[in-house]
Amino acid sequence: MTQWVYAFGGGSADGDTTFKNLLGGKGANLAEMASLGLPVPPGFTMTTEVCTRYYENGEVYPDGLEAQTEDGLKHIEKLTGKVFGDANNPLLVSVRSGARASMPGMMDTVLNLGLNDETVEGLAKLSGDRRFALDSYRRFITMYSDVVLGVHHHTFEDILDRHKDEYGYALDTQMTADNLDALVKDYKKAVERELGQAFPQEARAQLQGAIDAVFGSWMNDRAVVYRRLNDIPAAWGTAVNIQAMVFGNMGDTSATGVAFTRNPSTGENAYYGEFLINAQGEDVVAGIRTPQTLTKIAREDMGDTGLSMEEALPEVYQELAQTFVKLEAHYRDMQDIEFTVEQGKLWMLQTRTGKRTAKAALRIAVEMAEAGQITQDEALMRIEPLSLDQLLHPTLDADAKRDIIAIGLPASPGAAIGEAVFNSDEAEALHKAGHKVILVRTETSPEDIHGMHAAEAIVTARGGMTSHAAVVARGMGRPCVSGAGDIRINEAEGFFTVAGRKVCKGEIITVDGASGQVFLGAVDMVQPEMSGEFAKIMNWADKARTLGIRTNAETPLDVQTAKDFGAEGIGLCRTEHMFFEADRLGYFREMILSTDKEGRKDALAKILPVQREDFAAIFRIMGELPCTIRLLDPPLHEFLPHSEDDIRSVAEAIGLPASELMARARELAESNPMLGHRGCRLGISYPEIYEMQARAIFEAQLLVKDESDVMPIAEIMIPLVSSAKELEILKAVISKVAKAVGAPQYRIGTMIELPRAALRAADIAKHADFFSFGTNDLTQTTFGLSRDDAGKFLPDYVAQGIMEKDPFVTLDQDGVGDLIQIATERGTQTAPSLKLGICGEHGGDPDSIDFCHRTGLHYVSCSPYRVPIARLSAAQAAIRAKIQA
Amino acid sequence: MTQWVYAFGGGSADGDTTFKNLLGGKGANLAEMASLGLPVPPGFTMTTEVCTRYYENGEVYPDGLEAQTEDGLKHIEKLTGKVFGDANNPLLVSVRSGARASMPGMMDTVLNLGLNDETVEGLAKLSGDRRFALDSYRRFITMYSDVVLGVHHHTFEDILDRHKDEYGYALDTQMTADNLDALVKDYKKAVERELGQAFPQEARAQLQGAIDAVFGSWMNDRAVVYRRLNDIPAAWGTAVNIQAMVFGNMGDTSATGVAFTRNPSTGENAYYGEFLINAQGEDVVAGIRTPQTLTKIAREDMGDTGLSMEEALPEVYQELAQTFVKLEAHYRDMQDIEFTVEQGKLWMLQTRTGKRTAKAALRIAVEMAEAGQITQDEALMRIEPLSLDQLLHPTLDADAKRDIIAIGLPASPGAAIGEAVFNSDEAEALHKAGHKVILVRTETSPEDIHGMHAAEAIVTARGGMTSHAAVVARGMGRPCVSGAGDIRINEAEGFFTVAGRKVCKGEIITVDGASGQVFLGAVDMVQPEMSGEFAKIMNWADKARTLGIRTNAETPLDVQTAKDFGAEGIGLCRTEHMFFEADRLGYFREMILSTDKEGRKDALAKILPVQREDFAAIFRIMGELPCTIRLLDPPLHEFLPHSEDDIRSVAEAIGLPASELMARARELAESNPMLGHRGCRLGISYPEIYEMQARAIFEAQLLVKDESDVMPIAEIMIPLVSSAKELEILKAVISKVAKAVGAPQYRIGTMIELPRAALRAADIAKHADFFSFGTNDLTQTTFGLSRDDAGKFLPDYVAQGIMEKDPFVTLDQDGVGDLIQIATERGTQTAPSLKLGICGEHGGDPDSIDFCHRTGLHYVSCSPYRVPIARLSAAQAAIRAKIQA
Repeated sequence: MTQWVYAFGGGSADGDTTFKNLLGGKGANLAEMASLGLPVPPGFTMTTEVCTRYYENGEVYPDGLEAQTEDGLKHIEKLTGKVFGDANNPLLVSVRSGARASMPGMMDTVLNLGLNDETVEGLAKLSGDRRFALDSYRRFITMYSDVVLGVHHHTFEDILDRHKDEYGYALDTQMTADNLDALVKDYKKAVERELGQAFPQEARAQLQGAIDAVFGSWMNDRAVVYRRLNDIPAAWGTAVNIQAMVFGNMGDTSATGVAFTRNPSTGENAYYGEFLINAQGEDVVAGIRTPQTLTKIAREDMGDTGLSMEEALPEVYQELAQTFVKLEAHYRDMQDIEFTVEQGKLWMLQTRTGKRTAKAALRIAVEMAEAGQITQDEALMRIEPLSLDQLLHPTLDADAKRDIIAIGLPASPGAAIGEAVFNSDEAEALHKAGHKVILVRTETSPEDIHGMHAAEAIVTARGGMTSHAAVVARGMGRPCVSGAGDIRINEAEGFFTVAGRKVCKGEIITVDGASGQVFLGAVDMVQPEMSGEFAKIMNWADKARTLGIRTNAETPLDVQTAKDFGAEGIGLCRTEHMFFEADRLGYFREMILSTDKEGRKDALAKILPVQREDFAAIFRIMGELPCTIRLLDPPLHEFLPHSEDDIRSVAEAIGLPASELMARARELAESNPMLGHRGCRLGISYPEIYEMQARAIFEAQLLVKDESDVMPIAEIMIPLVSSAKELEILKAVISKVAKAVGAPQYRIGTMIELPRAALRAADIAKHADFFSFGTNDLTQTTFGLSRDDAGKFLPDYVAQGIMEKDPFVTLDQDGVGDLIQIATERGTQTAPSLKLGICGEHGGDPDSIDFCHRTGLHYVSCSPYRVPIARLSAAQAAIRAKIQA
Repeated sequence: MTQWVYAFGGGSADGDTTFKNLLGGKGANLAEMASLGLPVPPGFTMTTEVCTRYYENGEVYPDGLEAQTEDGLKHIEKLTGKVFGDANNPLLVSVRSGARASMPGMMDTVLNLGLNDETVEGLAKLSGDRRFALDSYRRFITMYSDVVLGVHHHTFEDILDRHKDEYGYALDTQMTADNLDALVKDYKKAVERELGQAFPQEARAQLQGAIDAVFGSWMNDRAVVYRRLNDIPAAWGTAVNIQAMVFGNMGDTSATGVAFTRNPSTGENAYYGEFLINAQGEDVVAGIRTPQTLTKIAREDMGDTGLSMEEALPEVYQELAQTFVKLEAHYRDMQDIEFTVEQGKLWMLQTRTGKRTAKAALRIAVEMAEAGQITQDEALMRIEPLSLDQLLHPTLDADAKRDIIAIGLPASPGAAIGEAVFNSDEAEALHKAGHKVILVRTETSPEDIHGMHAAEAIVTARGGMTSHAAVVARGMGRPCVSGAGDIRINEAEGFFTVAGRKVCKGEIITVDGASGQVFLGAVDMVQPEMSGEFAKIMNWADKARTLGIRTNAETPLDVQTAKDFGAEGIGLCRTEHMFFEADRLGYFREMILSTDKEGRKDALAKILPVQREDFAAIFRIMGELPCTIRLLDPPLHEFLPHSEDDIRSVAEAIGLPASELMARARELAESNPMLGHRGCRLGISYPEIYEMQARAIFEAQLLVKDESDVMPIAEIMIPLVSSAKELEILKAVISKVAKAVGAPQYRIGTMIELPRAALRAADIAKHADFFSFGTNDLTQTTFGLSRDDAGKFLPDYVAQGIMEKDPFVTLDQDGVGDLIQIATERGTQTAPSLKLGICGEHGGDPDSIDFCHRTGLHYVSCSPYRVPIARLSAAQAAIRAKIQA
């Protein structure tokens, strides 16, 4: 006979946490605590198999279930000494659903089941509190009718309001026992009126009704939709948990409370929590009475007047404290606990791994590892890599006053305060004059780079998590809120409006890039603290990981930041960002506007010394760490002015007729710039550009070698290659320059950022020292999806479950990842010593880093502020692989 | 001892055509003719191995070569009865290079080698013509000095001019023997002056010099560049052919001529050619004397006065005619022949497979097959599929007068005459009024569809072979010249200028889409003739091929054309083209401008009946042939007006403020529309659009079934899918409509046009009845290359050998093809009965069709005028596979 019912309580249980699939999450957890010998109110779990069979058999329960349920009840009765349905000594139970995966939106809990007109009197006698008994009864009728019988709880709330009005009461607690008695009568009448039959009085009938309702709820619309969206198979089924009720409100030796085994905010190894004497769980939450602390020290720290549990119920407290120790030792992690004391007896209602702040997580993990409770690997696995972000940026003081004016996307973390400005030139000018500014734009373009650099933070009205503003801001480590759609900017008159309010240029605003919120005025901040635990975890991570960690950076500030965060090299230095600087944009435009090679060479000759210094500055910081420098990538039209006004002023500045500049801009304009004349295609058409860049790199190497006797390691990267021939031709161009300059040490490689490059990797690898997967572009081309345009419909896609995650944030392992694997296999087939890295935005995403580890890449490269996250993620990936091996 | 020298002549040869790698093309060909017993002037070939060894050994000839060369000369002397270098009976030879692959730009021929101050007198005596002998000598000095000694031929031309001036001659032929004698003396002086040594008089020294020059030319710059561009390995080497000279100018029993064994223009099975008595080959070409016909019939047909060869030299003619029969029987194809008659003796100088017109190719292939000379398969392999295009369109009369004004790209074949007009509305209006118009635009966009339909032909100033104009024109079968860059259109004032000329609106122009030329005025035309041979070849092709042939068409005219050309179904009906028609563009814009689903549904309801009739019209033509209908694909902004003027007029027409229309257009605008909100992404965001289209399809099916009792077969195709889920969701949407309408027979499939779709084919196939490879988009995304923007730099790519062919014309088998193979493998793994087709432009390209056959696709789909080409290409692919199996 199949076992349909698993009992727990009285120091043992039929199951444990390994039975999660059969008993559901809740049932397995209760069984585990009971097995540990902890005082869990006894109960039993009907398995998920019952649910599955029930539906397979046309909503008929399997044979044997009834008898086993009866045995389960007997088990509870035996352990509690109470009898289900007995008028004098009634056993009350709770009935809860519990699936394998957490499913909010499923059936609610039914408490106090077993109460009826007779047992309520028994309960009154047992508890010595008739009001309590009647209050429990009226709550049970409400809950049961709503959940099981389908009578909406509004019905009962209306009746309650009417009664209170009659008596002139404001609060429910003013209702006396007699008042409640009358209320219960009216409740029962209402049920009978609505259903045409009386509220069920028979305890077993109540129980059956509740069980039917739980299993029935598995197929309700909400549950079906939730499962579809979360890929939960209907065949998993739900379990039902039936458990004896315990009461913390049976006098002064009763109590209820919640606790953490360590401080979830700071991570300090001290019990943390609160409790109430003679109260039920919901009273702690409701806030009518002020809960007291658990420990004496905590009471003293807080200057609390009420006695702590340690003082008020010393014996039970000692038992609870021992339980904390036992649970932490068992689960090997900080626990979040609910308990009830019923007339001096401790009952454990729940334990689960407690949520904690990033700071607490670090401290707990380190301290537990140092205490030998867990291994260093386990400590590393305990920390959510992305949560480290909170520790790297200033954050808003949680207690500070704030006046929120707009909400957008949390595009780049950190908080900043400054004057609102609406264009980049102004931002730069004010910044130079010592002001702190926040750049507020409808959207940003490469022409805003200097303004973004000058600003403390960036706010845009348009654009998603991967808009220009978001990507660049993350790269720079600037806080950014993007797509704050309600903001309307009037740049000409110098103000923006939002939700009916007007903010003028120069007014102070505060930006919280972690939450996507914008506030009027200055909000108090908390500065980041790189505590000792942070350094320890990073140190352990470095020992555990095999992936190298590099950074995507080009300004000396970013390069230095990344190095301080532990970057082991530069994986992507985007040289085009350098051309937007004011001192060379003019020359660069001169080059673009030249009609012949000589004209272009003249203009490039003027850029050469500046570019050389760009590279020298980077080499000086990175010393002997490798620096991968990508040659010019974006299409030339990105460097020309776009609006008619801009064109006119640029034309004037460079002494060219505006019409000619406009004509050239039109000539260069493209229908799909992402798929246009860019990347190595520029190098093929205008080899003189790449020649200049290569020369600047080589000369900078020699310069730094002369200064410091350290020879920088340059890795020259050719972007947007789609065939081996492109690389072959450009490699020859660069090698010729290298020979001319006498460059001593360099490698040449390519971005793999087009599907064709991945497919042709075997050929391409013959000419490459390294591959760097440019997963931003590779994602765009593999999906045929423009990052700049996807924002309009990606929400539809996420809503309909087509995409689980934004593929520009987390690597699409099934598609883009398949190409990376193909390229890796084919590339290393012809060039076994090929160095493999990734330099898209994904290089800082934990899931993507795990993929890179599994695929056998050698390093990931990410924006400077992501470096610590990547170090931890790489360690976790290595540990995960070790576990699975 | 290795054989370095292969002799031929006298009815036998050491080699034959199978020795092409060793003897080069020319040497192998001469050997073959000699082996056939044909009268070939005797000679020998130094092998390509000699060349290879020569370079391997530091430009030293291999041992044994000298002795074998001497044997070769003896072989010639023996057969000719002449002696090399003998003053009285001199043997003269020609020396020619000859590599494995044809290499124009290699060394020229040296003729008459062996002449010197003594032998020239012997030749004079033998020929009885001292002038001829001296003329041969001065030509030899010029040729040898130029090619072998490096004295530029201008030197000799200057001397000749000076002599002629002295005598007051206008023509070379006025030079007497004595004049030539003096000239030769001056020539020799010039050589001695320039080189410091005399012109070589020793015949063997002359020969060695010529051989050295041929092998030396293998490494000259021209040859090296040519080999690089054509992927010819340097290791192949060249051969050298040394052959006895024969002379057609030794009196009235000598002659020279060229002939085809069949008429190369019409294909008629009749000898075709011309000859001259007492003349050398160059005289036939020079046009000083009028050549005579070969046959009596030809002379009578042409009203020629000179005697035909059949009449003038009846015996030699009979020998020649027998040779024609022998050669055709041997080579099994029409031959292009050069011959010389020296004093009554026929000598064959060359035979090769003759070039012919498409029309002739068809007739020759069919007639040879019907005569049993070749098999039907061979007949099919003999016809270049793309050449059929010439037969399907009107063409310019080759003899007609013409006044060319512009040259662009031959974007869509056929010729047409009409009035120049500069915008689509005007084109349509004039067309309706009975005018024939040519639409001349800077470039075209989807808004020009109605104008392109109304026009006889299209000319654009911008855009490549795959620009909008080119693609749509090919689809419609309209002639098109694109990218005629010199044309400057002034639409406002109604004229265009080109090369200093002005053409006003209404002036007649002629367009030749096959050559890319535009002419002023009407040029006479020749109408296409689908002769019996055409039908026969198509019939044979249909029997040979296994690939199905469908068409990309949506207008009833195009659908009918394609069916008449033999299309077996529609592979791609682009429904969006239908929305550009005037009667529904308004409704469609109304839908786009609606802000809610209800508004969109109202507008769609107005389109439904029109769209239903669109499909019904197609179904009526196609009967029981399957029709693949692609649901809406392009981004919505393509349907909105773009210029400010257009926006204003449209806004007025639909009663909306221009500002609102402009705002919506801006909102919909995309950075990279090709990668934007289009294809099935529209169906996910606005399922009501696809619902309407599906309903229109199903209702049209039922309508046509009612009318004709024939149930149309609808295949609904979802574009731009990148994941199985998209297809799953949209399939559910369509199935629901199908159920509601009661649609009886339909299939649902998807375009595979994104790399991710190819990679995820296993999943996607679970929901698809068919895959259709959209290779236009797949090429764009695989290469990361926009078809609209590639024109700017593709020339650089072709010039540098990075791309051999435009990947939008011929499928990139290495990259895009790899994805097609991956998708085919993975798709059929989960869905073995999956139907596989291709519907990009490549579906009409012979090489791409061959790939489709090899990859195991079931059909190709192409524009209507490509259907015959595809039928033949598919047959050739099947035959090729059979041969290789």
